[in-house]
Amino acid sequence: MIERVKVAVVGVGNNTSALVQGLALYRHSGSLVGIRKPVIDGLGVGDIDVVAAFATSPEKIGRDVTEAIFLPPNNFPRLNCDLPSADVAVTKGLVDATEIDRVAAALAGAEVLLYSAPSGRPETARAYAGAALRAGVAFVNTTSDPVARDPELMARFEAAGLPLLGDDLASQFGTSVLHNALLRLLEERGLTLVSSYQVNLGGTEDFRNLVENPNTKRQSKLNALSPTGNAATGNAAAGNAATGNAAAGTVAVAPLGYLPHLASQKVAHLNLEAQGWGETAVSLDVKLKVHDPSGAAGVNIDLIRIAASALRDGRGGHSAEAASLLKSPSGTAI
Amino acid sequence: MIERVKVAVVGVGNNTSALVQGLALYRHSGSLVGIRKPVIDGLGVGDIDVVAAFATSPEKIGRDVTEAIFLPPNNFPRLNCDLPSADVAVTKGLVDATEIDRVAAALAGAEVLLYSAPSGRPETARAYAGAALRAGVAFVNTTSDPVARDPELMARFEAAGLPLLGDDLASQFGTSVLHNALLRLLEERGLTLVSSYQVNLGGTEDFRNLVENPNTKRQSKLNALSPTGNAATGNAAAGNAATGNAAAGTVAVAPLGYLPHLASQKVAHLNLEAQGWGETAVSLDVKLKVHDPSGAAGVNIDLIRIAASALRDGRGGHSAEAASLLKSPSGTAI
Amino acid sequence: MIERVKVAVVGVGNNTSALVQGLALYRHSGSLVGIRKPVIDGLGVGDIDVVAAFATSPEKIGRDVTEAIFLPPNNFPRLNCDLPSADVAVTKGLVDATEIDRVAAALAGAEVLLYSAPSGRPETARAYAGAALRAGVAFVNTTSDPVARDPELMARFEAAGLPLLGDDLASQFGTSVLHNALLRLLEERGLTLVSSYQVNLGGTEDFRNLVENPNTKRQSKLNALSPTGNAATGNAAAGNAATGNAAAGTVAVAPLGYLPHLASQKVAHLNLEAQGWGETAVSLDVKLKVHDPSGAAGVNIDLIRIAASALRDGRGGHSAEAASLLKSPSGTAI
Amino acid sequence: MIERVKVAVVGVGNNTSALVQGLALYRHSGSLVGIRKPVIDGLGVGDIDVVAAFATSPEKIGRDVTEAIFLPPNNFPRLNCDLPSADVAVTKGLVDATEIDRVAAALAGAEVLLYSAPSGRPETARAYAGAALRAGVAFVNTTSDPVARDPELMARFEAAGLPLLGDDLASQFGTSVLHNALLRLLEERGLTLVSSYQVNLGGTEDFRNLVENPNTKRQSKLNALSPTGNAATGNAAAGNAATGNAAAGTVAVAPLGYLPHLASQKVAHLNLEAQGWGETAVSLDVKLKVHDPSGAAGVNIDLIRIAASALRDGRGGHSAEAASLLKSPSGTAI
Repeated sequence: MIERVKVAVVGVGNNTSALVQGLALYRHSGSLVGIRKPVIDGLGVGDIDVVAAFATSPEKIGRDVTEAIFLPPNNFPRLNCDLPSADVAVTKGLVDATEIDRVAAALAGAEVLLYSAPSGRPETARAYAGAALRAGVAFVNTTSDPVARDPELMARFEAAGLPLLGDDLASQFGTSVLHNALLRLLEERGLTLVSSYQVNLGGTEDFRNLVENPNTKRQSKLNALSPTGNAATGNAAAGNAATGNAAAGTVAVAPLGYLPHLASQKVAHLNLEAQGWGETAVSLDVKLKVHDPSGAAGVNIDLIRIAASALRDGRGGHSAEAASLLKSPSGTAI
Repeated sequence: MIERVKVAVVGVGNNTSALVQGLALYRHSGSLVGIRKPVIDGLGVGDIDVVAAFATSPEKIGRDVTEAIFLPPNNFPRLNCDLPSADVAVTKGLVDATEIDRVAAALAGAEVLLYSAPSGRPETARAYAGAALRAGVAFVNTTSDPVARDPELMARFEAAGLPLLGDDLASQFGTSVLHNALLRLLEERGLTLVSSYQVNLGGTEDFRNLVENPNTKRQSKLNALSPTGNAATGNAAAGNAATGNAAAGTVAVAPLGYLPHLASQKVAHLNLEAQGWGETAVSLDVKLKVHDPSGAAGVNIDLIRIAASALRDGRGGHSAEAASLLKSPSGTAI
Repeated sequence: MIERVKVAVVGVGNNTSALVQGLALYRHSGSLVGIRKPVIDGLGVGDIDVVAAFATSPEKIGRDVTEAIFLPPNNFPRLNCDLPSADVAVTKGLVDATEIDRVAAALAGAEVLLYSAPSGRPETARAYAGAALRAGVAFVNTTSDPVARDPELMARFEAAGLPLLGDDLASQFGTSVLHNALLRLLEERGLTLVSSYQVNLGGTEDFRNLVENPNTKRQSKLNALSPTGNAATGNAAAGNAATGNAAAGTVAVAPLGYLPHLASQKVAHLNLEAQGWGETAVSLDVKLKVHDPSGAAGVNIDLIRIAASALRDGRGGHSAEAASLLKSPSGTAI
Repeated sequence: MIERVKVAVVGVGNNTSALVQGLALYRHSGSLVGIRKPVIDGLGVGDIDVVAAFATSPEKIGRDVTEAIFLPPNNFPRLNCDLPSADVAVTKGLVDATEIDRVAAALAGAEVLLYSAPSGRPETARAYAGAALRAGVAFVNTTSDPVARDPELMARFEAAGLPLLGDDLASQFGTSVLHNALLRLLEERGLTLVSSYQVNLGGTEDFRNLVENPNTKRQSKLNALSPTGNAATGNAAAGNAATGNAAAGTVAVAPLGYLPHLASQKVAHLNLEAQGWGETAVSLDVKLKVHDPSGAAGVNIDLIRIAASALRDGRGGHSAEAASLLKSPSGTAI
């Protein structure tokens, strides 16, 4: 019988809510609905236990993780499943590198540390990675902060025989995945793209943060579209424009819209205008509705299992298996 | 310098209009917009000449093919290009097998006979194939009538060293292509399909004919969706239902709508409801607008070049290269 | 304190399910969500009691109405409210006019008989009206069968001082309401309609019946659009076409699609293409999702109250107040 | 026979392009397509002549107005009509109040001055109004800058017997018109609004300017929605939120998206989520495509005729007839 994976989580936001509730749902129901990989290296989705959680919000600290995940500003819905207490009180997260020892101690017994805090605090991310190293725990970085792309850190994880997976989680299903698939499809069928846009609307804290720094995120979304070989021209609120291959048509990302009433649901409107034989018009309009935190949890569950399996096998450093689940896997330029 | 391919066409409907006009547009402009394969075996899209055309409508017979393509019920738009007279008068098409000799004589000088008449007249299709055999001309069957799937006919083309490509053209870009791509994408990303539908609206004679025989077409559309591994349940106007793999969710094809004002433009509404991690809802709504005749011509241009190249190389019978351009390639059960 | 209205219902389908469940929901919660008229002549939505119900399905007869409404083919969802037993067993409905006495006896104590059976059985409708006359009960006909439009019947209700409201319920919110509002809006703003279509998809028995008799329903839907002054051209599967004022543009109703997975939810796709100043294009695409049975119950609740109030006041015959809630009020040509 | 109205225009942007081209189209074709009021006080849409035009762009000054309207950044399309030279060279617009005399002199012969420059320069707007007063010309202010709402200016126009119409043109057909109509429709039918949003995308200079000052415009759009009695909550990029009547549901306006490839076409995505009987869900998704400059010209043509007619009749000051064509008619608080 398989030994369950013990995971510690940094960040008790919507993504952790989706992870914790989903684990309860799948373990109890045996359902495989929405699961991309039922088993990875012998580990099922129900074979994961959250054994520690770190947060900085005073309201969350000390509460059981199964309660803390419902505190504002979290707004991922309550799933339709029993959620027994985890007997895991949320621990105060680290604020600076002086607390690495305290965090490392709190990691005792964990095998994987999933770093699922908001992006934008690289020093914090690296401090947690340091704690994982000290505690002999595998580290998974889901944020865009460079951790697995830091060669020095990667070398230390390799030397210690500890897995280090990251950076920047690629959602199981989101606007970029869909937009890229449609751009690729047009290309495969020989249609010529004339123009395309995407608009993203959402109601999470994540969205609120991103609209405050719109160009960064839109550039990232444009980058996410470039592997298709299609040009991407960003048109930011401030009026800047990054130009790509004009011949391939224009792909524009409109400003993100923070609409609180959407809560954890993201709505995206996509349009693709193209030309087929005889230069006649082909047009596609798409509306997507999806819960972003589910898209994150659906990939985190794979990264956790890959990390745990590598740890148990003594394979330190990065994992080729994880690369397709990450936007900026180790080796990518920072 | 390459010798241009001489093509005879059976049927002077919208698809032939798109082909003839597109050839003029591309030859004159040098544009590659909407072209899937700029060159096949050395042949560009401008290297095709229509040298004969057969039709049954008295209004079309005797008119230059560049005029006949604009007569009703044809409603493919006039493209934005010069269209010089082809000096090819439309010939009276054959009505029964006694006229094979006459048609074969009219094929003198042609290399490829593109059979682009409405589906549903298998005897006529085979009679034209017979005329092609007699005239030493390659045959391309774009209809769903079984010609290339007829082993006896295929053997005769092989014996004669004449290419025989068919059956049933797969559009360059249409509802099935798009719907399949989206169903596959959900599957690849690990989402579980709950339900899906497509509605097709159009204004061509083709659409008018199909709505008179709705179940056949809808079953064909459902079949077109099955290679994805997704279940397909058809719900026809008359109430029948073909059941597939229930666990994989329901894919329904609504009755076709013949709306004359759409002319040669097809409009499709697609919906996909799925579940991701935590069984949370993912929904996709898509509107597609496309000119069906362009989708046909964009593939016919490839089939013609494959057939011509095979003919010139002495490769008779079917062609592996053509299989992906056909819904029912030779070898498929009738 | 107001005396509650005692209603008998013919037909225990989705519309009755929506009515019975909604009454329980509103009475218990005091909510006014989705209520068009909180009070009519002193009667609130919670002031209605269903005291008798007639059905022909052997499975439903004898069951409490609060259970019978969930039996197949009914597929209106279970609302989120307590639904205590009504202590009203479903009675066997009448099959022919010989049973009028039995039904009249079963109506003892009722004030209003709501005729909510499927359309298409005018003799049955009139027989129930006869039973209502005999029992001294007001009659509300929600079907398109002519009852209130029958002058002889109307005269008998008037003579008896009994209200007779009908025919053919106009939904609280459906495709016709929305399509008309958009056509009117374009007209008011001075835009010129070029073309328009609507496609309706649904999964109820009602939809299944309608797709078997598609032209009737589509003509009715086209008629529903004519008061806007816009032309309506129907394009039925069988190829018929009703022509209106061509100058005003084409409004087409595509064939209904019966998609069982939609259950009681209706989905409609609407498109309006118009021209504004300088003959530039204006286009509108709309997707509507709505539960048809809710649209019916939301109007039935008003008709019941109007009928009860008229009965109590001794006002027999039709009611001007009800005319706007009906597609074919009395006085309309049959 | 009617004397044609002589109009001078300030601003040679997209709106003037739509006006000038539309006048040529309608005069030549006699078409009434897209015209809201064929005749106002005896004046048809073809009875308008542009006799002077003011601009500040050096490229436009000195060019015939029929050429200047096609210079960048203008991107309203070339309409399908002959556009003979107007023999009206674009005049250098005023930069400060010292030039009022020069402008007044250039207005000789004009009856109406249409102020159609970008909003946001109230001093310039008032200087042009001063020039109109001096020249004895009626003034129409289409911008949101307060001119007709300035009581002192209004008094001077009244005293001079000159019409002064403004402020802030209400488009013939745009997002606000549509969104309001849908909100009103839900309300009339008794549905309860749960939430609603609109996203506006466009490619004009106007859009580019607005995205640089997003909250102002979004607040204006929210204000435009308030007459429906529905609450409006704005959620700006910077995170502010204007709260309305929470009980009536949330109407959100997402950040404007400047997508240059859309040129003068505006695209809006609207969503309305509501509840009907039984608190069941009703949802509406709408995509609108429209040319903003046509929406402006279609109303300017009415304001010009109202102003000219009032001038000829000696009715100075504001006009009740114009109030419904303006967002902030005189009398509105600034």
